[in-house]
Amino acid sequence: MSAATAALPEITAYRSVPDFARGRIKDIRVRWALGEIGQAYRTRLIGGIFEDKAPAYLADQPFGQVPVYKEQDMVLFETGSILIHIGESDARLLPRDAKGRGRAISWMIAALNSVEPTIQTLVVLTVKGQGTDWLAGAIEAAKPFAEQRLFRLSQALGDRDWLEDRFSIGDIVMVDVLRNTNPELLAPHPNLSAYVARGKARPAFQSAMAAHLADCAIGEPLPA
Amino acid sequence: MSAATAALPEITAYRSVPDFARGRIKDIRVRWALGEIGQAYRTRLIGGIFEDKAPAYLADQPFGQVPVYKEQDMVLFETGSILIHIGESDARLLPRDAKGRGRAISWMIAALNSVEPTIQTLVVLTVKGQGTDWLAGAIEAAKPFAEQRLFRLSQALGDRDWLEDRFSIGDIVMVDVLRNTNPELLAPHPNLSAYVARGKARPAFQSAMAAHLADCAIGEPLPA
Repeated sequence: MSAATAALPEITAYRSVPDFARGRIKDIRVRWALGEIGQAYRTRLIGGIFEDKAPAYLADQPFGQVPVYKEQDMVLFETGSILIHIGESDARLLPRDAKGRGRAISWMIAALNSVEPTIQTLVVLTVKGQGTDWLAGAIEAAKPFAEQRLFRLSQALGDRDWLEDRFSIGDIVMVDVLRNTNPELLAPHPNLSAYVARGKARPAFQSAMAAHLADCAIGEPLPA
Repeated sequence: MSAATAALPEITAYRSVPDFARGRIKDIRVRWALGEIGQAYRTRLIGGIFEDKAPAYLADQPFGQVPVYKEQDMVLFETGSILIHIGESDARLLPRDAKGRGRAISWMIAALNSVEPTIQTLVVLTVKGQGTDWLAGAIEAAKPFAEQRLFRLSQALGDRDWLEDRFSIGDIVMVDVLRNTNPELLAPHPNLSAYVARGKARPAFQSAMAAHLADCAIGEPLPA
């Protein structure tokens, strides 16, 4: 590795993931943000998604997830935290004025804590409940929470291109949450589908996805 | 209202909540943070948790939740975003150095996106599934995700008092998530139970809870 490469920020990613998870891992959010501001980075592959993580890795990322972000002696985990740090280096991701900055971070946290969990619950139930007699009842109970959040989000977005007057880290996380949402849930909200399409059309998203897919090209079976 | 009171930061809270939710609403996190640094605030009560929210309220808080935080012309939503803002005003909540700051924010986001959703899924299923024939199967499928995160959290905390070398906004959110977790899930991890007890013993937590309970003293039936 050259000295110039060694000085770049480093992210971790998986070398192998099962088919259903490929294209849905959170290193994409960080790669996307870095791409938006033209910041090169290097990737450290840490093995499979279901492999036991080494103690040294758990010291950096207590839950064994990806990505970990390292820049000089700073070690960050959780994409939301990493995106705030990257955003603070460039106003194209996070406005400099306190008001705009606060609003962008509010949207990013809303994506992480008010929208994604309602969607993720449905994913977990669907994956774990295939072929069981409890799946339909559980989905019926959990789905209204996701529907209500998506309805409110659609109302708030209206006919704007992005959540506020310009693109920010809030949009990176919200688009990434929505693009992995069951299309049936988005169908009542054409403005959300158009918003996702706008996000996915950005060159930095496309490069991020290509780099992610190249890195986790190895398949991995589900654990027994 | 005196001019001095009018100049204080304002948070919103509910006037009425159903019994099961009293003591578990997120305005407590913001009240707690403000209490830690001795910052007075005023509260605007917005009615019941299940009441339709006015369009003006949804413009500030797209999902109709509490709290909204207003300070001069800044309007923030999502407690995670509000806590970062409050933390930036006082090193007792958020270290000033980039490394410590990043680590505290990483933990706060971990609480919001990696721990709380796994617990919240169980709460939603339990509340909506009472007396149904699908509840047991769904809980059995969803519980390992929460158990795995709590195991990792317990390993990471070890015998420290707080998640890092001193108390931060990461602890406020993590303690608040854990104190609302089914005790059965915490039972295998005495260090997490002790951590919750340490958080709840802080005078600022106790004042926050008392103020919250006084404000939402009116009961509210569940919607039909």
